Amino acid sequence: MPTFQFLPFAALLGTLGFLCVVFTGFWSHHWRGGFAWDGSAKMFNWHPVFMVTGMLVLYGAAVLVYRVPSSWEGRKLPWKLLHAALTLTAFVLVVLGLVAVFRFHNAKGTPNMYSLHSWLGLTAVLFFSCQWLMGFAAFLLPWSPAWLRIIYKPIHVFFGSTILTLAMAASISGINEKLFFSLTNKTVPYARLPPEAWFANFLGMLILVFGLLVLWALATPAWKRPESESLGAQQPLFH
Amino acid sequence: MPTFQFLPFAALLGTLGFLCVVFTGFWSHHWRGGFAWDGSAKMFNWHPVFMVTGMLVLYGAAVLVYRVPSSWEGRKLPWKLLHAALTLTAFVLVVLGLVAVFRFHNAKGTPNMYSLHSWLGLTAVLFFSCQWLMGFAAFLLPWSPAWLRIIYKPIHVFFGSTILTLAMAASISGINEKLFFSLTNKTVPYARLPPEAWFANFLGMLILVFGLLVLWALATPAWKRPESESLGAQQPLFH
Repeated sequence: MPTFQFLPFAALLGTLGFLCVVFTGFWSHHWRGGFAWDGSAKMFNWHPVFMVTGMLVLYGAAVLVYRVPSSWEGRKLPWKLLHAALTLTAFVLVVLGLVAVFRFHNAKGTPNMYSLHSWLGLTAVLFFSCQWLMGFAAFLLPWSPAWLRIIYKPIHVFFGSTILTLAMAASISGINEKLFFSLTNKTVPYARLPPEAWFANFLGMLILVFGLLVLWALATPAWKRPESESLGAQQPLFH
Repeated sequence: MPTFQFLPFAALLGTLGFLCVVFTGFWSHHWRGGFAWDGSAKMFNWHPVFMVTGMLVLYGAAVLVYRVPSSWEGRKLPWKLLHAALTLTAFVLVVLGLVAVFRFHNAKGTPNMYSLHSWLGLTAVLFFSCQWLMGFAAFLLPWSPAWLRIIYKPIHVFFGSTILTLAMAASISGINEKLFFSLTNKTVPYARLPPEAWFANFLGMLILVFGLLVLWALATPAWKRPESESLGAQQPLFH
């Protein structure tokens, strides 16, 4: 792959991520009746917004923290704390996103956790919570042994990409099923591609492009923290 | 990540891939009425079978050809031809899978290419066809210049994983929407998780596990052809 500078690439990625969040919000606001926190369909509308913001965009920013060239010099701790804070914020949004859909289902009497989308999404969230707790225990707690950090680091890195891939597949299947739910009984159904369908399909493709670029950035060797510096990865919080 | 031997891992992967194909066929056969080539719903049933077999399982086998340790020694040409033949076979199945769904839609008067699933799936197929043609032109044609092969190889490798990720997201969204289509008007709808829903949800998760393991195998440094051997990658067909 031709060599790009990380920072201009990150600016492009930030713009795409911002557009993913804004477009998701616009879809819910303009076509799905806006937002509320009352168990109604307007409460459901927070679900895609929180999930795209937390599980994709903030998560994407968090996993790329160690690709910022200035993170390779000096103390690693501030970057580790930034990574932990961004992923924790993402996790809080994801939990709010789950509350939004569960309360909407419960108020309507719809069963929870039956669709493949929900199985996949919950798998992503469960992996994400384990990932955060394990990362905290291994890389930030002072009594974490060096052998644990050495063994666990590649597992943590692998699941970092895996969780993002699950989140991408969950987003796509979620947007797809929401359009079938919402556009079925209208005079212009989903199959006739009304403006909402064009818009949300485009949003789905944008989310995919964003996620694929994050995965690519993670896998690009030139952007990885040099190995000689990697001992810093094993310094716990208070050492 | 702990070190695994590639060949036992490939045997596990082959078993999972085989199960993906068999389960997809069983779903169509047992719950969706079986197969025909007549424009009916039975013709549609070939769509998931051909797509899972071609775009995921055969494709997954094809991209891992260069991870077989014996491919690192001796002439690379037989392995390149195997890679080209497997991907071409996969592509033929994918085209048949597209014919199955387009003829079913046309016979029923359903518009084509409206859902996010279809946009995503067709993007994967278009990328796949470009990937095959470019790969053939750059790595097998004798007049392909060395600079082209050097520049194009990392792009080919990147799109190899990207296309598989798109195929995974397309499979998940496809299974999800098919279950909503098929299980809506029954006494036990999708939301009540009849046996078909359990089975097909499980199939979706199995497809994800298979795809993630292929992506992981591709990214594992120890399984990559050593750099010193990589000049072989640039030998065209008749040199």
